Amino acid sequence: MSVALSPPLRVGVAGLGRAFSLMLPTFLGDVRLQLVAACDTRETARAQFARDFDAPTYDSIEGLVADSNVEVVYIASPHQFHAEHTRLAAAHGKHVLVEKPMALSLEACDAMIDACRQAGVHLLVGHCHSFDAPYLAAREEVSSGRLGAVRMIQAMNYTDYLLRPRRPEELMTSEGGGAVFSQAAHQVDIVRLLAGSRATRLRAAVGNWDPARPTEGAYSALLWFENGAYASLSYNGYGHFDSDEWMDWTGEMGQTKDPSAYGSARRKLDTVASAQEEAELKAKSTYGGPSYQPPKPAGPEQNRSWYQHFGPIIVSLDQGDLRPMPHGIQVYGHYTKDWIPLPQPTVPRAEVIDELIGAVRNGVPPLHDGVWAKATLEICIAMLNSDSQGQDVLLVHQGS
Amino acid sequence: MSVALSPPLRVGVAGLGRAFSLMLPTFLGDVRLQLVAACDTRETARAQFARDFDAPTYDSIEGLVADSNVEVVYIASPHQFHAEHTRLAAAHGKHVLVEKPMALSLEACDAMIDACRQAGVHLLVGHCHSFDAPYLAAREEVSSGRLGAVRMIQAMNYTDYLLRPRRPEELMTSEGGGAVFSQAAHQVDIVRLLAGSRATRLRAAVGNWDPARPTEGAYSALLWFENGAYASLSYNGYGHFDSDEWMDWTGEMGQTKDPSAYGSARRKLDTVASAQEEAELKAKSTYGGPSYQPPKPAGPEQNRSWYQHFGPIIVSLDQGDLRPMPHGIQVYGHYTKDWIPLPQPTVPRAEVIDELIGAVRNGVPPLHDGVWAKATLEICIAMLNSDSQGQDVLLVHQGS
Repeated sequence: MSVALSPPLRVGVAGLGRAFSLMLPTFLGDVRLQLVAACDTRETARAQFARDFDAPTYDSIEGLVADSNVEVVYIASPHQFHAEHTRLAAAHGKHVLVEKPMALSLEACDAMIDACRQAGVHLLVGHCHSFDAPYLAAREEVSSGRLGAVRMIQAMNYTDYLLRPRRPEELMTSEGGGAVFSQAAHQVDIVRLLAGSRATRLRAAVGNWDPARPTEGAYSALLWFENGAYASLSYNGYGHFDSDEWMDWTGEMGQTKDPSAYGSARRKLDTVASAQEEAELKAKSTYGGPSYQPPKPAGPEQNRSWYQHFGPIIVSLDQGDLRPMPHGIQVYGHYTKDWIPLPQPTVPRAEVIDELIGAVRNGVPPLHDGVWAKATLEICIAMLNSDSQGQDVLLVHQGS
Repeated sequence: MSVALSPPLRVGVAGLGRAFSLMLPTFLGDVRLQLVAACDTRETARAQFARDFDAPTYDSIEGLVADSNVEVVYIASPHQFHAEHTRLAAAHGKHVLVEKPMALSLEACDAMIDACRQAGVHLLVGHCHSFDAPYLAAREEVSSGRLGAVRMIQAMNYTDYLLRPRRPEELMTSEGGGAVFSQAAHQVDIVRLLAGSRATRLRAAVGNWDPARPTEGAYSALLWFENGAYASLSYNGYGHFDSDEWMDWTGEMGQTKDPSAYGSARRKLDTVASAQEEAELKAKSTYGGPSYQPPKPAGPEQNRSWYQHFGPIIVSLDQGDLRPMPHGIQVYGHYTKDWIPLPQPTVPRAEVIDELIGAVRNGVPPLHDGVWAKATLEICIAMLNSDSQGQDVLLVHQGS
């Protein structure tokens, strides 16, 4: 990537909440872009952004998309606004990077795809963990054919997702809350990437068993692919067993994790008495809030984060298995177990910026485009339908 | 268990092959029984048994079941003979301990159950890994209700099952070969035990992708239960990734495993040129064969085996997760992670003899009876049918 030859990409941020906080280390660390504007409904967040970036802010999306200095709008507003915000950005000729899940319905995805096509702008969906370098490297290994055809994929992730402080709508499935919309989007995307084939059908069971947090917290699914491969996906966000134990105690964000911190999410959550208090707790620690902590500088190499990930995954091929890990890929071959190391990342999620720059500056069609993300959403919605209907759901929007 | 008051149970062995070799340490170590007779078609095996136990041997099942000194027939003949051998044993008034899978069809199971009922003898099916003490202890923990209702079970096992030396029929599904009949029987049994409820339906994908060993080597399945719980089961016997890594590098037989021995099963298998050579290789190392190794004495405590197991299993309940391990149970609770240690076993698989003695000497109905094992077989057969029919299979033989 030639940095010196291109001016930085000028990004405007729509929504300064949790998703933005998680992307901020990338925006701060990657010299290929700069943040030039933002909008948010919270005055405190706008004020902090203005201080941090010496850039204009807006209290509505309309102001942001009209800002002529913005080339790309990063849409990190709540899920239910993704479609409308994308439409507005495209209508003003801005490229769009929208957070996952892309939208809450396939119709909304279509409208977003059409709006961007008609405006001649790129539409990327991310960050999603399928951008993480170990999965991209594993996909290269699969595509190389060295180990034969993909046959079976096992993906699982046990986290404390459902215990993290939430706004009420994040616990409402109809608003795009719950593990199926928010978490399966990662896992399904990764599995699709590794299978390298169109998904054809799905069967799933969905778990929703905490009356205090009445949305999906867990699921198990079987997914079939056109090339004959099948995948087993499982997720549990109720915060007991932690599968990062099987990822060398490296957390989702690539950080070293302390196994002795067991139960910390639940202890924190148990201190809040109401949904309102919980939303306030979340708001306080969000960008612009009184207890917000800015990202720490990377620090010495030995303390630096590794690649982000979404739990243990085993890809079984004819001649061996692949296991993407936060710092490389374990290849289980015919006679030997081989380790393919990956270089330690300097900027987290730089893979998103690679793809964004590739599209906007160099015209390389992005992998994580609207059509790709719509196919993932179809599978997430199919999980809910398969569970309620008690049968397989055929998948018909998996691209051409 | 009062040992001194009861005379040892007098067991006759039908079939001195691999299953018998795996039970031999139990028979040698458990003073509550003695081996008093055996039958096998191989003269060398009979000769070794006669030397080892100073006991009569027979070249056919008919001789064994007619031996008046035999109280219990342990049926460890090839799968396809289980039904007929059980019928003969029952007809002679012998109790039956039959290896899993119980039989190859539900009709055969019914015939076995009826034959034993009419003869007034007990029918036990095992060893199966659902006898392993950590699963029985986890089941107690589930039944206690301390952690609320069971919601989701994740069971997986990655082994080198399909690479072990085999007789040709062990690689033929129609003869009871392959991972679904031989291996799913363990996993399904354990999951049923832990769910504590009748299974209602199943969806599965089955993998059969090595043309040189044309039977099932892998599967993934979803299983639903009457109490609302669901389970995800996965198995891969193609010998690449080894999930014993997630069991503290303790192998299926409870032994400490050397991770650096990667690929040894494949290297061994690659030395044989034909199915006949492979069958000979297996026969050589089987009881009575020239390279047979008798079980080693237990040795000092620190080198002794732990409980046997069938791969990583996570049971998720309302208030916590349970993870049965070879030496205890990890309980992931509300705020804390607690370890329930189990006493180190002195005799492997003593749990089978507990249940056998309980039934035959004390009239305690066995858990692993014919009706129980038939229900597991129904699920294994449903895996094959669900895969070929591309839909859920309803389960209707799961007991009353």
